[in-house]
Amino acid sequence: MLPSLNKTPTWQTIAKKVQDHRDATIAKVQPSIPDIALEDIPLDSTSIPKTILKPEEIAITESTPEDLVSKLASGELTSVEVTNAFLRRAALSQKLVNCITELLPETALEDAQKLDESLKANSGPLGPLHGLPISVKEHVGMKDLTHNAGFVAWHERIAPANAHILDILSAAGAVFHARTTEPQLLMHLETSSNLYGTTVNPFNRSLTSGGSSGGEGALIGLRGSCLGIGTDIGGSIRDPAANNGLYGLRPTTYRLPMVGLTATKLGQEQIVPVIGPLSTSLEGVKLFMKTIIDAKPWIREPSLIPMPWKTDSQFPVLPDGSKKLRIGLLVDDGVVRPHPPVLRALNSMTEKLKTVPGIQVVEWKPFKHDWAWTVISSLYFGDGGAEDVAAIEASGEPWRPLSDFIVKENPNVKNLSIGEVWDWTMKREIYKSEYAKLWEERDVDVILCPAGPGAAPPIDQARYWGYTSQWNLLDYPALVVPTTKVNPSVDLSETDYKPRNEKDKFNHDLYEPSKYINAPVSVQLVGRRYEDEKVIEAMQYIKEKLGLPWAEYV
Amino acid sequence: MLPSLNKTPTWQTIAKKVQDHRDATIAKVQPSIPDIALEDIPLDSTSIPKTILKPEEIAITESTPEDLVSKLASGELTSVEVTNAFLRRAALSQKLVNCITELLPETALEDAQKLDESLKANSGPLGPLHGLPISVKEHVGMKDLTHNAGFVAWHERIAPANAHILDILSAAGAVFHARTTEPQLLMHLETSSNLYGTTVNPFNRSLTSGGSSGGEGALIGLRGSCLGIGTDIGGSIRDPAANNGLYGLRPTTYRLPMVGLTATKLGQEQIVPVIGPLSTSLEGVKLFMKTIIDAKPWIREPSLIPMPWKTDSQFPVLPDGSKKLRIGLLVDDGVVRPHPPVLRALNSMTEKLKTVPGIQVVEWKPFKHDWAWTVISSLYFGDGGAEDVAAIEASGEPWRPLSDFIVKENPNVKNLSIGEVWDWTMKREIYKSEYAKLWEERDVDVILCPAGPGAAPPIDQARYWGYTSQWNLLDYPALVVPTTKVNPSVDLSETDYKPRNEKDKFNHDLYEPSKYINAPVSVQLVGRRYEDEKVIEAMQYIKEKLGLPWAEYV
Repeated sequence: MLPSLNKTPTWQTIAKKVQDHRDATIAKVQPSIPDIALEDIPLDSTSIPKTILKPEEIAITESTPEDLVSKLASGELTSVEVTNAFLRRAALSQKLVNCITELLPETALEDAQKLDESLKANSGPLGPLHGLPISVKEHVGMKDLTHNAGFVAWHERIAPANAHILDILSAAGAVFHARTTEPQLLMHLETSSNLYGTTVNPFNRSLTSGGSSGGEGALIGLRGSCLGIGTDIGGSIRDPAANNGLYGLRPTTYRLPMVGLTATKLGQEQIVPVIGPLSTSLEGVKLFMKTIIDAKPWIREPSLIPMPWKTDSQFPVLPDGSKKLRIGLLVDDGVVRPHPPVLRALNSMTEKLKTVPGIQVVEWKPFKHDWAWTVISSLYFGDGGAEDVAAIEASGEPWRPLSDFIVKENPNVKNLSIGEVWDWTMKREIYKSEYAKLWEERDVDVILCPAGPGAAPPIDQARYWGYTSQWNLLDYPALVVPTTKVNPSVDLSETDYKPRNEKDKFNHDLYEPSKYINAPVSVQLVGRRYEDEKVIEAMQYIKEKLGLPWAEYV
Repeated sequence: MLPSLNKTPTWQTIAKKVQDHRDATIAKVQPSIPDIALEDIPLDSTSIPKTILKPEEIAITESTPEDLVSKLASGELTSVEVTNAFLRRAALSQKLVNCITELLPETALEDAQKLDESLKANSGPLGPLHGLPISVKEHVGMKDLTHNAGFVAWHERIAPANAHILDILSAAGAVFHARTTEPQLLMHLETSSNLYGTTVNPFNRSLTSGGSSGGEGALIGLRGSCLGIGTDIGGSIRDPAANNGLYGLRPTTYRLPMVGLTATKLGQEQIVPVIGPLSTSLEGVKLFMKTIIDAKPWIREPSLIPMPWKTDSQFPVLPDGSKKLRIGLLVDDGVVRPHPPVLRALNSMTEKLKTVPGIQVVEWKPFKHDWAWTVISSLYFGDGGAEDVAAIEASGEPWRPLSDFIVKENPNVKNLSIGEVWDWTMKREIYKSEYAKLWEERDVDVILCPAGPGAAPPIDQARYWGYTSQWNLLDYPALVVPTTKVNPSVDLSETDYKPRNEKDKFNHDLYEPSKYINAPVSVQLVGRRYEDEKVIEAMQYIKEKLGLPWAEYV
């Protein structure tokens, strides 16, 4: 046998192969989407879909999930037309921002067809998501399809079954039309891998889409999907939601099913990853949560808590009919000062909140958020990063800069003994108890805070996780909500600012108003553990009173 | 300086010191309890209290917790008289079975006095446990008192604060009158330590009281307490409850507060220990659970799940008024066959159950219970036992035989890497999912099974954990309930039995009817995760229909 026949393919060859596969699935979308030369795509790509799609496709893809499921259930729209519209817009999104690992036109349209037929035959929808297309982060397993979790070496791993969450969504009538990009390691607040390259921000293509669910963020930001599935262990749902002007929820752990995902460090339970929704609407987030929890996922997946979705109001109502809501305002975590657009968003929101009867805003002083990062980042990679190193090095693919950052340059990554992990776990518990005590003393309902230290930064610069990882450590449900966009003529640099530390300096130096032009600015609402419903209800109420978001995106 | 002045005390010196302290606290109980020569104590010591205590003390100490709290709340009994009666009986219990580490006559009577005064002043009880004495396993921290967790080296460790659970019970009106023994390591199904010696079984003093909450088991078995606090990571509440004819519940994890306990391996979360009640009545178990959960312990201890205690019925009611209840019957786990008395208890119970309208009994075939033991015992000591070895060897105290058994002779105890712990964790999760699937397919409400491979064995022979540790691995709530006693003339040896394996042979050879005379025989009722309320309700219903227990103990 000739040696060349046995040659292990290079990572470049593998990357080409998976990209060819992706492009082949996109080519099956009909009518096909024309290729667009890179130089013809403006910095803000969000205007492009209107120039290419048909008006009815635009109308469908710019509808909210709640509008679509209502029209699908009544038969006003068919699932085939809705699915095809989203397939077309997803295909276009790939050409604009590189957010897709594969489209599923054949199975999605087949499923849609069956749902349309069943609606007629049974004169009713299969479930609350009847006919709705949903996009899915790549490492959420789909039966008989590959899932690689961002590693070149894993490109031929086949999922033996659908992830549990997909079974539930499917039984509720959902259609899966798109699979989306994620970074090498799954642990960047950006989305770049050697398999698919870099996913960029649709609102400003020189910026990141965020990550690790950055394919979802960019795709939904461009309305190639209205509801998608992400995962989050340090901000990976909320960061791309924030960067793309979306709603995104990191639920409390053990509420939504996790079986059937591929990743390194499976079995690591000190910092528990979660799955959750990104959506163009807050109602979409709620629909996602309620649909899954109503299916009692704890029966099949016993690590989940049998806690039904609460539908009654979580707030007292005052005599004038307004809800009594006490908000803790955390503007700055004391470690890294947010950029001017974030400060403007929070200040302007607070001014409006203070005028709403029933709403009280009090200062939330941060409590050792730097220590929180030490604890969480010590527990992420208890094996010293061994599994991740092995998964990267198995193919000889290069380390991406943000993989270096979080594993190799992270002083808290050490090969710990079991006893050391137990020690860090106790430190985590003590910190959680201290924070819980503060919450009890300060007696707030929710905390309003930044979703990150700025809007989406330029590529490879997302190096401060504290505004999102803080709530992973505490296991608090946290919801990101869009508010405005960066306006360089208003959001000026703070030229006289004296940074407190290296991280603060890095973030401060990053901000140049013109570079961030048009980037969505989001905020975050945080609740106590297992108060997911309360956080959503609070945001619905705030939204209703304040008219969020203040900027229109599409 | 003379070398002798610096000499580290021997473990024997320390043991004498802590026992002297214990005896001094007992001597403060008034009227004092006479010493009893060992040779004057019969094999069954349960008849002795009636010969020494006053009739009113006997009446009080043989009342159930629910009767006592009712009489204490109405003022029919004072907390001082109830507390002193239990102090007296606890002092006597120590002399009979060696179950106490210290009594708390001064603080208990002071607290009782205050509660009596407050009842009069406020014309009402402080909470649902107003004035009720509760006994506490030693490693549950009490402010300013030592807690040693069974290690000689830890004999001077002082608890800086009350354990969270004690604060809650105290706020509900409980009085703490006794602290009870536990074994070296806290991981024997017996109770012997170099600090306090061996706790024996009140019903047959040649047998073990069980463990690790064996001080509680023996004390409550003798009615020196009617409600006590134990902990359980492999059977440590249920085993002593079973061995002493008591009710004992291992709740689902993260329902009851754990902060403030001392032990090795704190921070180990793969197999989560729980705290729970042992009681002379089933209602006592429920009162304990409901009181603590009604106090919302999750506010202060955020690792707990905010899940209120369910008070509505968990079973459908049939047209004839009977509850619909499907019971899976697991007689033998396929690894170690239970002794004849256990088989008799289950068979006789099943025959009766089959005659109750609405109750259906189906066979529950065991599923890889031997593998379950491999998984759980691999995860108990992920550090290869390093913390336990260090804690024992710090004082030079000898290893107890059952410490050798569970650490040194256990082939699954290895110094694991972090990656190996993650692997075992995934194996645990897969096994839990498989078991959950069986439960769904077989569609039972509860599983009825042995509480152990026999009644309480002779000292140092409790070497099979499978009947209890099985449910720790699966994190199912499991309730032990007394049924009968060993009757050597009925419970004959199975002479023609061919053991399946070494463990089975060991257990089989252990059984000689005459040695086990009079030992309580208990069974166990198991529910799905977080169905603690359902398990208790099922047992209440069964008890009502069957008239359990069939033997009277006191």
